[in-house]
Amino acid sequence: MKKADIGLVGLAVMGENLVMNMESKGFTVAVYNRTTEKVQKFVEGRAAGKNIIGTYSMEELTASLEKPRKIMMMVKAGQAVDALIDQLLPYLEEGDILIDGGNSHFPDTIRRTAYVESKGLLYVGCGVSGGEEGALNGPSMMPGGSPQAWESVKPIFQAICAKVEDGAACCDWVGENGAGHFVKMVHNGIEYGDMQLICEAYQLMKDGLGMSAEEMHEVFAEWNKTELDSYLIEITRDILGYKDEKGETVVDYILDTAGQKGTGKWTAVAALDEGVPLTLIGEAVFSRCLSAMKAERVNAAKVFPKEVPAFEGDKAAFVECIRKALYASKIISYAQGYTLMRTAAKTYDWNLNYGGIALMWRGGCIIRSVFLGKIKEAFDKNPALENLLLDDYFAETIKGLVPAWREVVAYAVKAGIPMPAFSSALNYFDGYTTDTLPANLLQAQRDYFGAHTYERIDQPRGQFFHTNWTGHGGDTAAGVYNA
Amino acid sequence: MKKADIGLVGLAVMGENLVMNMESKGFTVAVYNRTTEKVQKFVEGRAAGKNIIGTYSMEELTASLEKPRKIMMMVKAGQAVDALIDQLLPYLEEGDILIDGGNSHFPDTIRRTAYVESKGLLYVGCGVSGGEEGALNGPSMMPGGSPQAWESVKPIFQAICAKVEDGAACCDWVGENGAGHFVKMVHNGIEYGDMQLICEAYQLMKDGLGMSAEEMHEVFAEWNKTELDSYLIEITRDILGYKDEKGETVVDYILDTAGQKGTGKWTAVAALDEGVPLTLIGEAVFSRCLSAMKAERVNAAKVFPKEVPAFEGDKAAFVECIRKALYASKIISYAQGYTLMRTAAKTYDWNLNYGGIALMWRGGCIIRSVFLGKIKEAFDKNPALENLLLDDYFAETIKGLVPAWREVVAYAVKAGIPMPAFSSALNYFDGYTTDTLPANLLQAQRDYFGAHTYERIDQPRGQFFHTNWTGHGGDTAAGVYNA
Repeated sequence: MKKADIGLVGLAVMGENLVMNMESKGFTVAVYNRTTEKVQKFVEGRAAGKNIIGTYSMEELTASLEKPRKIMMMVKAGQAVDALIDQLLPYLEEGDILIDGGNSHFPDTIRRTAYVESKGLLYVGCGVSGGEEGALNGPSMMPGGSPQAWESVKPIFQAICAKVEDGAACCDWVGENGAGHFVKMVHNGIEYGDMQLICEAYQLMKDGLGMSAEEMHEVFAEWNKTELDSYLIEITRDILGYKDEKGETVVDYILDTAGQKGTGKWTAVAALDEGVPLTLIGEAVFSRCLSAMKAERVNAAKVFPKEVPAFEGDKAAFVECIRKALYASKIISYAQGYTLMRTAAKTYDWNLNYGGIALMWRGGCIIRSVFLGKIKEAFDKNPALENLLLDDYFAETIKGLVPAWREVVAYAVKAGIPMPAFSSALNYFDGYTTDTLPANLLQAQRDYFGAHTYERIDQPRGQFFHTNWTGHGGDTAAGVYNA
Repeated sequence: MKKADIGLVGLAVMGENLVMNMESKGFTVAVYNRTTEKVQKFVEGRAAGKNIIGTYSMEELTASLEKPRKIMMMVKAGQAVDALIDQLLPYLEEGDILIDGGNSHFPDTIRRTAYVESKGLLYVGCGVSGGEEGALNGPSMMPGGSPQAWESVKPIFQAICAKVEDGAACCDWVGENGAGHFVKMVHNGIEYGDMQLICEAYQLMKDGLGMSAEEMHEVFAEWNKTELDSYLIEITRDILGYKDEKGETVVDYILDTAGQKGTGKWTAVAALDEGVPLTLIGEAVFSRCLSAMKAERVNAAKVFPKEVPAFEGDKAAFVECIRKALYASKIISYAQGYTLMRTAAKTYDWNLNYGGIALMWRGGCIIRSVFLGKIKEAFDKNPALENLLLDDYFAETIKGLVPAWREVVAYAVKAGIPMPAFSSALNYFDGYTTDTLPANLLQAQRDYFGAHTYERIDQPRGQFFHTNWTGHGGDTAAGVYNA
């Protein structure tokens, strides 16, 4: 029997679809699942007649693979991955490659790369985005880990991944150890931000302009023909137009309590760790938390009854302002996300290709959009670009959007419609473009009560001063606090 | 020689001042410092003639103490605490009490409490706030850890801590293991928020209204006679009025790049972990990060030159609006902080006394204010209060502040002056008081691309539905993702 090109463990919907995708590209795939009935069901069902080999033990799985063996693990992120690695190791040999295609947290992937390499094997932590549809028809793939593994894995990954119009593959090597999963995490954070922005635009049209799902369906259909052309705008269009068998618009019946799997939170925590202001994604994560406090909100709405004033003005013109505000906010979110990657790359010593990342996200994944092509252009033009806002195209674009953006946010502020992501984006823009922020006062406060010292604008950086503000505090700065 | 009532390790400014404070209340204190010259210098200097015993080894320190021994560690948070515990343990015996008075991260204190208790000793993690002045004259103290330790520690702590007008001590038992350091961490997060709010008010007056430090000094002096009466408003008044020997206003010469010691970040991460929207403190932490990107901001300000339009209107009336907006935002910040404590208390099984916490913060610490008396009243009236905004007093207060608050934030949005904390507070208020948020659309999106399911408003909670939106996706929900 022909040996398989790759093995895959974990036959949930993502795993199955990846297998079908690989097979359709001419690869033979060996599959294994802990609950082995799942293997049999798959092999006799969707996989029947295909070059897919069902295996029922680790031994059988590993024996069925061409060397160096490549095994893709599609199991629940966390301890299941560690357990699976330890189950597989005894059956593997030097040069074999373990691939984690789940949503693992990047510090785990850093640790696992070192662990698996210490056993003489290679490790790949690969972010996979695109949901079940993407897994089947071409996901965005973000592999990182042991660099020597890339050559073996590349033909399979670049065959199954999404392609953009010119045929370029939405998969390239990201970097060492946890780089792939880090970039996938940032992708997910940006996804949180994009979704929140769309939700805020929806709420503004619904509660501010009194528009129906049907009307908003038309708006998103139009928006999808503009710079906002993207998967999330497209599915929003479809969702708003989707009626059940009774003719009811389904979205109107869905409870407004968002769930989350934690990857948006990871992104916010990583930003806090790196000291990078990632305010929009932070607000998006917190908005999901707030949405989940449904009973409290219903109660609070009674204590603080609100009446949104009827909109007076040109609705169509205002809808266009909302579109511009959404686009401006989205640019900010990506600028923040890219700053996080740039900063983390320094911390973890990754040599990230920012244009390449934009290309990986350009197709296949949840945040895929025409817009990412513009980001790729910006980084292709200047790989060391400090902030997306400083690219000529984006700088000019933002300048054109600012008036509408301010109008929309100010309207929401007056009307009492929450727009945390739009607002935080605008505040970031205004802060980032302000040469003198009020942190001089903050540093004075810190020096006043904690002797934390400050720098001066009339002295070189790196010199620290302390003022005895009260006249009765010490003259000594706090300095190090040691036994 | 009389044995000492308590020992203290770590003679930096906080440690020294705490020793002086304890001694002034009639306690004999034994002191030790790793660099032993520091002990000698202290004993021969500030401590000369006082009931303060210099010791030069762990053995000498522990031998000089009454049993059960109480040793307060005032060393740098982190590994230094673990190292010190392990150095002390061999000289201690059952029932002795180790007290960590530093800014330790609460998970460390949870771990250390278990570790020290496993050796038969007792452990106290005590948050201490008030800076060097507070340490000397009466800090706010937030002790948690081994409950049996409280009886022994209480007389000393309640003697040295701050007192409010009626003599009540700003120190009481917070709860088990890490509860004291958790509450101190939230205190610090709130401190970040309060400082950021003051800074934003300052920037609005400076850049929007064109006011001088001298004029703002007067404003803060007035504000300190209102509901805003607090330590931070008071020192802001003093800072804005402070001139150096050349007659220059010092704050105008301080560089606008804020430092941080990480406790604000911990608070934001804890909120993300608990799923509590702590948006204002989050923005305050990110604002410090943004301020630190000085060179980038100066560069961006050139790319996006801005001209704040001259303010037209009644400046004095607008300053009063800013005051109201500041007060409203501050209420939100405390409401968010208290929600975080309530949620964490469930997670960690702490029985927190929320009114008591307000009392501990009422005096001595950096966030001390008249306002905290109102919070204490609210929780005394209803210890199970779900959200500060739902207390009658605060609900009515906020209602009165809302129009000014909206006006100020809308003005800043139009003028291009960043006010991330004011804005995030208002957005939280508007979100918390909205019974239907747009998360229905978000859940539809998640179900569309990831089969994550949703609940319906016309069905009981806890039932999850999946729609095959595309007609060609699977009918199966994502569910668990297992091998």
